[in-house]
Parts: sequence; structure tokens; C-alpha cells
Amino acid sequence: MIERSTPPAASTPRGTAPALPATADLPTTELVQAGERVLEWIAAYLDHPERYPVLAQIEPGFLKQALPASAPETGEPLDRILDDFERWIVPATTHWNHPGFMGYFGISGSIPGILGELLTAALNVNAMLWRTSPAGTELEEVALGWLRELIGLPPAFAGAIQDTASTSTLTALAAAREAVPGLDVRVKGLAGRPDIGPLVLYASAEAHSSVDRAAIVLGIGTEGVSKVATDDAFRMNPDDLAQRIAADRARGRTPFAVVATVGTTSTTSIDPVPAIADISAREQLWLHVDAAYGGAAAILPEMRHVLAGCDRADSLVVNPHKWIFIPIDCSALYCRRPDVLTGATSLVPEYLRTAEAGQARNLMDWGHPLGRRFRALKLWMVLRAYGRQGIMARIREHLRLAQVAAGLVDEATDLERLAPVEFSTICFRVRPADLASRAEEEPVRNYLNTLNQAALEAVNRTGEVFLSHTGLGGRTAIRLSIGNLRTEERHVRRAIALAREMGARVDQAERPAALR
Amino acid sequence: MIERSTPPAASTPRGTAPALPATADLPTTELVQAGERVLEWIAAYLDHPERYPVLAQIEPGFLKQALPASAPETGEPLDRILDDFERWIVPATTHWNHPGFMGYFGISGSIPGILGELLTAALNVNAMLWRTSPAGTELEEVALGWLRELIGLPPAFAGAIQDTASTSTLTALAAAREAVPGLDVRVKGLAGRPDIGPLVLYASAEAHSSVDRAAIVLGIGTEGVSKVATDDAFRMNPDDLAQRIAADRARGRTPFAVVATVGTTSTTSIDPVPAIADISAREQLWLHVDAAYGGAAAILPEMRHVLAGCDRADSLVVNPHKWIFIPIDCSALYCRRPDVLTGATSLVPEYLRTAEAGQARNLMDWGHPLGRRFRALKLWMVLRAYGRQGIMARIREHLRLAQVAAGLVDEATDLERLAPVEFSTICFRVRPADLASRAEEEPVRNYLNTLNQAALEAVNRTGEVFLSHTGLGGRTAIRLSIGNLRTEERHVRRAIALAREMGARVDQAERPAALR
Repeated sequence: MIERSTPPAASTPRGTAPALPATADLPTTELVQAGERVLEWIAAYLDHPERYPVLAQIEPGFLKQALPASAPETGEPLDRILDDFERWIVPATTHWNHPGFMGYFGISGSIPGILGELLTAALNVNAMLWRTSPAGTELEEVALGWLRELIGLPPAFAGAIQDTASTSTLTALAAAREAVPGLDVRVKGLAGRPDIGPLVLYASAEAHSSVDRAAIVLGIGTEGVSKVATDDAFRMNPDDLAQRIAADRARGRTPFAVVATVGTTSTTSIDPVPAIADISAREQLWLHVDAAYGGAAAILPEMRHVLAGCDRADSLVVNPHKWIFIPIDCSALYCRRPDVLTGATSLVPEYLRTAEAGQARNLMDWGHPLGRRFRALKLWMVLRAYGRQGIMARIREHLRLAQVAAGLVDEATDLERLAPVEFSTICFRVRPADLASRAEEEPVRNYLNTLNQAALEAVNRTGEVFLSHTGLGGRTAIRLSIGNLRTEERHVRRAIALAREMGARVDQAERPAALR
Repeated sequence: MIERSTPPAASTPRGTAPALPATADLPTTELVQAGERVLEWIAAYLDHPERYPVLAQIEPGFLKQALPASAPETGEPLDRILDDFERWIVPATTHWNHPGFMGYFGISGSIPGILGELLTAALNVNAMLWRTSPAGTELEEVALGWLRELIGLPPAFAGAIQDTASTSTLTALAAAREAVPGLDVRVKGLAGRPDIGPLVLYASAEAHSSVDRAAIVLGIGTEGVSKVATDDAFRMNPDDLAQRIAADRARGRTPFAVVATVGTTSTTSIDPVPAIADISAREQLWLHVDAAYGGAAAILPEMRHVLAGCDRADSLVVNPHKWIFIPIDCSALYCRRPDVLTGATSLVPEYLRTAEAGQARNLMDWGHPLGRRFRALKLWMVLRAYGRQGIMARIREHLRLAQVAAGLVDEATDLERLAPVEFSTICFRVRPADLASRAEEEPVRNYLNTLNQAALEAVNRTGEVFLSHTGLGGRTAIRLSIGNLRTEERHVRRAIALAREMGARVDQAERPAALR
């Protein structure tokens, strides 16, 4: 074990320092004093987040009306600011830490990650260049190497941390665009070029909206995103992919990338990456895998299969801030063709040239933002504090809880499951038993959508749990997603019970006479 | 004064809680214990950052070689991780907190900002929707309203926080692209369209590289960035701008945006925004102002003029993480045409539709990343803790220190100032007195560049100060930028003295015989 070095403060008792002039920072005694109050508050908060309603029970405008319209003229004590934090900010907060938070992707940061962010804020480095933060640069390579190995990607994948999967996918698709032979988009752009046709990328109809948004930003346009059909389990149909590519080529369009998803947002379906990789290779298209949510599960040997075929991807994104207990933001973008990636957007003006170029990576080359936070620190701290076994145990528990939820849904005569459970997210709906045989009739279908929307709102109004929704083939589905370190079986059972209870209540009050 | 609410923990002593299973987070007792150690470390660090060399004195690969290649199998105690932080991460850190850090843009976070990041990490909200973080959404509007007023922009400007100015500029230029009538890039993209010519945007030769990078990402290409000539004070020449626009129109190209800079990266020159705004209005081009660094100075009445004309911009970026003492990252993008901005990239799939749409803003609409950190918290806390007077006093002191540095440079016979000092950044070079009259001769010119590069490296190797460089009309300049709360006059004097000392030393050792 490494010896703890003596804290540098020991030789200079801070209490005896003279008052600092107003041009310096606050005295560090205030950091320690206010910081201890904050730590105590956080500890109490994390011990009992359920004392707050999970979904903030306020109306839009609450905070804007409560706070002054202008900054104060003179500085205020930290204690007063923290008082206001507790009084105004906390009630206006939707508590992602609440064990009942099961909307969108339930996520949670963790104690080692929180401490990592604290240290990152204190060091306050901009890791744009190796020189400006050797630790920020190299620890990112180290920690992403650890994660790469944990999820079973081969060493050929180089990684870089982005803020979100949106940016990771944008960066990957910028590289894909740059990889098209003869295009040279970087220099020539896309507009006013009679030599090229419209560019097309392929993603399933269930792919995340960030794919469309990346296409918009990159100048491809939403018409350049070909939405491949899915099967009845919401997975991309490779035959449809192949046909679309052939048809586009015949029309003079230029296919350049395929985005496959491991864990789609609505149902967490898994696209058949091996078959998609075959097609991508044959057609020489860049294959990007969006495993932002699902990739974390591959840490478990029994779930390794979810990334089957991904070793053949050109790029892959997995978000440690989703299901590896890192505070937001931390998205890991892996790329098997790092030269293309860094060549796609990097640009080095004179004032950013350094002696280390060539010997060390500069993070500014790994995506469009020049400035970079030291995000690797929290990732490194969480991976160490939990270890591989610890991460596995937590993800495994979430998978188990999802099976409990699925079992409860499947047993209930008034609930209907709407998608397979691949990970820890369940899509289901309230469907009163007496309507089961008529569920596909148009008026019943419409009524069930209204019923589920109302039931969901009623569930969320309780403040006990928070669930979100999606649309699946015209049917409104309630989504329950487990990813929080504080969620226990009783919370999951309560969520399902509340859905049934509110569903029955709304059904009794709202069902049209014609459907009774 | 608002009463401090009772910390929620009071009723549940954490010490008596049973050991948590390995599927939960660490016990919060560990958060408090390790957190106190971290606070003490940070306090000591901020009290004496100068006990470390400002520029990390290590070779590339130091950290990669020191750390294990794989994540640990089982979890490790936080104390051991913090030991390793002190042992390995700190020596591999370039200390942006060091009072001698005057490279790039010297910046500093501050104690209230550090505490803000700690709370942000603990709440760990994703503020993508109002519903998922009403506080994150509304506090951003409030705090950016405060900042807008502080720098004197009119209320018509709506703001949103982005990670960096690179992203702010990318987002603004995506809006500019979308604003071109009849183009509909969002849907149709740019490629394969015989109806449009190449798009062109204008920025001075001194504009930041993020403008070119945005052009690359957006599919405009570097050829679509027309570099407008600058005058001898490195300011955009509006006549050249007007001529370029006319010439491009004549060639069938489509001008769509102008980027003016208030505080360029090399010399912090200020483009003549009023004249540029006239041209932009006449030509119906989107005007984006990059005031990432310089905008903060407009908080001072005596510096308000630096944003003259900016009320007529369509968008403007100012970075609170540069010179308003907010830990990185926090870039404020203001836009006078928010409908265009949000329409440029937003996209709302079914699973992100909420009842509040129309009543409240959703931050996911204000730029391409879906996920959003609660960055407004630290901004709000710093503006409150310092107040307007406090921010002004600190920026004013940095401006004063810059004048001290400029005076020292101007007095020294062996130094030459290479640009006006508009803010707190000085560009100068070592130029031995006996070479003053021959400085424009080719061999002397080349030698001076070599000399300054070597002198700069020697200065940085001392670990006492860190300066960066730039190129100005073929001349290598040393850049000294003051923005750190801990930088005092003695540090600035020492930096200039070191430049002179190392310059003389290198000159003595390296000057070619022909130039003696």
C-alpha cells in the first residue's frame, strides 16, 4: 500500500492567515467549513432521498419567480447561499437519486464519483493538451483501457471521453463522413458540389434521436437518415438494411454509415450486430454502435453476448454515467480507426502547438470541443472503489430486479408486457382484463393509450416513483428502468402496484360507456 | 435572511445503520470521512499551489506506466485511492491554480464554484427536460439573466449553458445555417443539392480555431471559412469583409454568417463590431460574436465599450469558466433569435414528450447534446458569493496587473511588445537591444523566433511560471495571460524577469556568430 503523503497544509495553519483582499478567492477556511456542511447535507440526502417526492411537485416558473432578477451587488456568505439551496433548489429538483426514480434510464452517481468531481473542480484543469494536463490526458487513456477490457472490446479500440452519447455519436459520424473516399468534407464541405450525391446513414426506427440530430448538425439532414425496419422485438432487420443500401446506391445516393444499437431507448432491444457488421464490411460503411446504455451489461460474463460482433465496429459508445455509477457527464467513445477520428475535426493553430505533439495524445483532437474537463478522475475512482466484482454485483442486481418486475407484469391480468426484457428496463401497459380480447379494436386501442397516459401521470403525482413512457407501434407504453444504487425490490414492487392501482382508478372513472 | 433548514440527517444517525449490501453505494459515513480529507487537501492545495511546479515536470507516458493496466478485481478503500491521487495524479498535473499559470487564458475556479460542482455531482440530475430538473432548467435561465445584465446585453438575448465556446459557436453557426431562407438544411442536408452553392462564413485571420472546426463539423468545410484581413492591431478589417462578401456572391457562393471576436486568442484584439454589425445587417448574415474571453470584462463600467455593437449580434458567447471564476466547464451562449436556435437541431421523440412542452423550456432543445449537467448551480453560487462588486474587483485587478506587465515590457530594452493590451493578456518577445534595428532582416527574424521559443521553454522548465506562445505575422510571441485569483503583482514581475533572464541566457549561448 502506498503511504499517505503528509497533507501540504500541515506546515501552514490556515487559521492564522491574515484576511485576504477581495481580489483573491474566499479563505480556504470557508471552503472547509461550508464544505463540511455540504458533505453532511449530501450524506443525509443520499441516506434518505425518499423523503422528497421523486418528481418535483412544482409548476413551471416556480424558481424563476422565487429568485431575484439580478445578481447581488456585494458578496453573500456561503451559509446563506446554502440555505437558499436547501430552501429553493432542492424542492425544485427531480430526484434522480430517489430509489423510486425509474424513468428514462434510471441512473446513479456514487460516492467515489462525487469525490472525483470535487477533486476535478478543485484542480480545474483544461485537459485540451497533454501539456495542460498530463494526468487528465493519461488517466483518460488508462481508465478507458480498464473499461474497454471490462466490456470485452479488443485493444485496437482507442477511447476518449465525451460529455454525452449525443456528442460521441456526432463525433463518430463525423469520422464516418470523413472516411468516405474522395469526399474530403473537412476541407471542401458538402454544399455546392456537383461531384457528390446526398449522403445516407442507416439506423433502425428505434435508434436514439441523437442519430438524427447528428445528421442535422453534420449537414446530412434528416432525409439522409434511412430508418431501417425492425422485427417484432424492435431489432433492426438486416435484410431491410441491405435492400435500402442497394436502393440508395441505385438512386445515386452515397451510403456512408450504419448505426446499430445495443439497448435502444424505448425497449432496450439489441440490434443483430454480427449480421449488420457483415453488411457494413461488404458495403464499406462505417459501423457505429450505440451501446450507451446496454454496453455496461457486457461487464458480466453472462451478458457478454450483448456486444457480440461489436469487435468489428468502427466505433462504439458506452456511457459510464448511465449504468457504471459515474456522475453525469461521462460518455466513452471507442474507435478502431482513431486516425480517421482525430483527422475528422482536429485543427491545430500556432498557439496550440506543443513540443509533445507526436509523443502524446492531445485530447482536443478527439472531438470538436477544445476545452476538456478532467472527467477520467471520477471514472478511475469509481472503478477502483467498486472493483470489477463490485460493478458486476450492482448491475446484476438491477437485472434481477427487472426480472422481478417483468414477472409481476406477466402475472397480472390487468397489465400487459409490450417488449422483451433484455436488460433492466421493462415496457408494459395497463390493460384491464375485460379488454384483453378487444385490445386491437380501434376505439379500445385509443382508449388504452389515454388510460395509460393518465395512469402514468397519476403514478408520478404520488411522488413515490417516477416512470416514463414511450410509443410502441402506436401503443402507449409505460417504461420502468432500474439503474439506481438505492433501488430495492420493494421499490420495484411498489411501482408495479401503483401502476395497477392508478390504472384501475383511472379506468373506473374514465372508461367511455361504449367500452364498458 | 432565510432560516437554515434542519439537515435531514438529524433524525437518522448514520453510525448506527447496518452494513449496506454490496449492491448499494458505499456508506455515507465514508463520504463524510473521505470528503473531509479531500476538503483539507484542497484547502492546503489552494493555499499553496506554488509548492508544485506549475507545468508538470514529467515525460509523456509517466502515468500510463505507473498505473496498472487493468481495473482491480475487488473494491479498494477510498483512502488508498486518495493516497494514489496524491502520489501519482498530483505530480502529473499542470497546476492551473498556480499563481504563476499565465499560459493560454489564465483562469481560475473558485471556492463557491467548487462547492457548486460538489452539489451538482451529488444531485446528479440530467437537466435534459424541465421535468427531469426544474431547478437545473430554471436556475440556468436565472443565472444567465444575471450575467446578461452584468455584461450589459439587452433582455432580448436568451441564454443557454454549453460545455465550451467551441460548442457554443458550433450551435450558433448551426442556427445561422438554418436561418438561410429556403435552405432547410435540417431536413435536406447540404450534399447532392444542385439548388445551392457553397456556403461561406467570415471570420478574421485571428479568430479562434473553433470557428474552423465548427465549419468542418457543419459540412461547410474549411474552404467555406473566408479569413478576413486584419489591421496592424489584429482587428478585422470591415472593408475587406464587405469586399469578400460581394466577391463570393458574384461567384455563386452563399454567404451566411460572420463571426466577430471580442478578445482574440492570440492578442485579445477586439474586432470593430459596430461596423461589422452594419455589414451583417445589410447583407442579412447571422452575426455571431465570440466574446468567450473578453466578454467578462464588460462587467466593468469602464470596459463596457468592448461589447459595443454586440446588442445587434444574433448570438454571442462568453465563458464564465474563463474569467468569472467558475470551474470548467461553463460557456454561456446568448441568442437574440432563440426560435431559430432551438429549431436548428432540436428533435423530440415520443419518449421525450412531456406535459410541460410549451409552458417551460427544455434544455435539450438548446444545442445538440441531449444530456445536460446542472451547470447553473456553480454559476449562481459564484455570482452570489462574490456579488457584482466582487467580480469587478477581481477582473479590475487582473487588468491592472496586465498594465504592470506591459509597463515592464515597454521599459525593458531587451523586450518588445508585439500587440496592444486590451484586457489582461500581453504578447511580447525577447529582442536583444543590439538587434533592435535589424529585427526585420530575415536571419535576425528567424533567430528571434528560435530564441523566443527556447527562452519560453527555459522559463517553463523553472516551474515558477507557465507562459504560452503564439505567432504574429511570422514572429514568435510569448503570451502572458492573467486570470487567476492567486496571481499577485510579484508573480507577474517574476514572469517578466524570468523571460528576460532566460532570454539573455539563451541568447548568450545560442546566437549564431553571424549575428553577433
